[in-house]
Amino acid sequence: MNKICIQVPATSANCGPGYDTLGVACTLYNVLTFEILPPADGLLLKVSGEGSEYLAASEDNLAFKSFFAVWKAARPDGAVGLKITMDNKIPMSRGLGSSSSAIVAGVYAANVFCGSKFSQDELLNFATEIEGHPDNVAPALLGGFTISYMEGGKAHSLSFKPALPLKLIAAVPEHKLATALARQAIPQQIRHIDAVFNVSRASLLVAALMSGSGQYLAAGLEDKLHQPYRAHLIPGLQDVFNAAKKAGAYNAIISGAGSTVMAYAAADADHEGIAAAMQQAFAMHGQKCQTHILDIDYQGVRQL
Amino acid sequence: MNKICIQVPATSANCGPGYDTLGVACTLYNVLTFEILPPADGLLLKVSGEGSEYLAASEDNLAFKSFFAVWKAARPDGAVGLKITMDNKIPMSRGLGSSSSAIVAGVYAANVFCGSKFSQDELLNFATEIEGHPDNVAPALLGGFTISYMEGGKAHSLSFKPALPLKLIAAVPEHKLATALARQAIPQQIRHIDAVFNVSRASLLVAALMSGSGQYLAAGLEDKLHQPYRAHLIPGLQDVFNAAKKAGAYNAIISGAGSTVMAYAAADADHEGIAAAMQQAFAMHGQKCQTHILDIDYQGVRQL
Repeated sequence: MNKICIQVPATSANCGPGYDTLGVACTLYNVLTFEILPPADGLLLKVSGEGSEYLAASEDNLAFKSFFAVWKAARPDGAVGLKITMDNKIPMSRGLGSSSSAIVAGVYAANVFCGSKFSQDELLNFATEIEGHPDNVAPALLGGFTISYMEGGKAHSLSFKPALPLKLIAAVPEHKLATALARQAIPQQIRHIDAVFNVSRASLLVAALMSGSGQYLAAGLEDKLHQPYRAHLIPGLQDVFNAAKKAGAYNAIISGAGSTVMAYAAADADHEGIAAAMQQAFAMHGQKCQTHILDIDYQGVRQL
Repeated sequence: MNKICIQVPATSANCGPGYDTLGVACTLYNVLTFEILPPADGLLLKVSGEGSEYLAASEDNLAFKSFFAVWKAARPDGAVGLKITMDNKIPMSRGLGSSSSAIVAGVYAANVFCGSKFSQDELLNFATEIEGHPDNVAPALLGGFTISYMEGGKAHSLSFKPALPLKLIAAVPEHKLATALARQAIPQQIRHIDAVFNVSRASLLVAALMSGSGQYLAAGLEDKLHQPYRAHLIPGLQDVFNAAKKAGAYNAIISGAGSTVMAYAAADADHEGIAAAMQQAFAMHGQKCQTHILDIDYQGVRQL
């Protein structure tokens, strides 16, 4: 076996109050084929879909970088060439975890070639080391909702399925938002009462999801740790939130670092109506966007 | 019916990372008898146990105050006298919710006399108004673990049972700690990364309790929002934490605003050993303490 095909989900981190902690995998996928070549063939990349105009084969490309991090740890003497073929559906620099998807696909593929030498926990740490934070890589690896944290320099994550059926409606603006820029907007010092606010909302969100208590999701998705500081980077943000709620969503949040806005809705809500309302609210601020009505992905990365 | 008997549980708020949010009811109780008298008889109080040396009948006594808040809302013209007989087991000013127990008993008793005119949610708000925060009154009212939050000036609370059996081991120092003093120790501004730390730990704690994943409780009980700022008010705190863990507890935390330290342990842990280790660690710092091995109370306040 020298060729495998890997499917990896998009992910939406933070989930409102769970900054750098919560994440959820959703049913929008990149599919990557990894082919081992003779060392002399070097690195080859073929991309269709998102990123096809500028992604290039190199040790810095996240899929190659993460693949070789695991490959070299398993086989220190095993020089190889590698061809990756990507079919990318996850928009880039929009807060949907496209970087994490490439990283998770890479570490997972290398581990398959190496006879699953590493555990899921070890793969989480390979991926977190490259990404910098576990909150997107964990749901891409594990599926479902994830609660990630660092302890003694190691990443850990608890994954769970919500006890109520949910739809996630993504409004993806045309304009990209660099994660580094969105991170710079966060102050180093904040008010203690804002921290307490998020502690209460994150606790409530987890409990509401795990107990299937949809009536707590509107409050449970509120945030004061990052969204207020990033609102100016996403024109129309508050109007898009309001439009989603008015159209029947529980609430809406900034997906990851943005620019995507993600609405959470019950299974029997008017999902097309919510998507249209968000699109229209963005349009009122001169922002074009695409919408996706998504389910939660429960499996995470997998070999096809 | 002009006389009823009410049992109300002790509560332990904050639960590590859940400052002003999480709380749990435990099997240590005050029992209060409320007897309606002719208006001319005024207010009478008889106390045995905790507080018997200084509690007095008055409109400022929390049990009377909370009783009349509900009574007067239900019967604006119904002047009465009231005799309360208290058998108090919950230590006072030690972070075990003794104030909230008096308040919850009062609002609950008045509501019984008034034909249960008010809902549980309304009683929560009567009690929160008097206490100032919902994090102790909610578990005293509802039982189990509670996640409380304020929204639009109203208190709300979600109650849940943990999916794993737990014992709570309370080490109650002789020295009292006024909640107001313990609140003053909390800074108004904190680091954003400390807020994120608590968001991750509170989320993890709720998920670990609800999914029965004991292996996450050590990390899930960690805190950076109040305990580091209150450590100097409880001599030996860190040593007591360490002693509890070494003796087999998942972890230990400051109960409410202190001075009680509460260890969380599995059902099959050596609870007497944990209690003895905490007592010994306090003794090394010249602190006498009593210990209680408690279960979670699932019922909250009730009429006997």
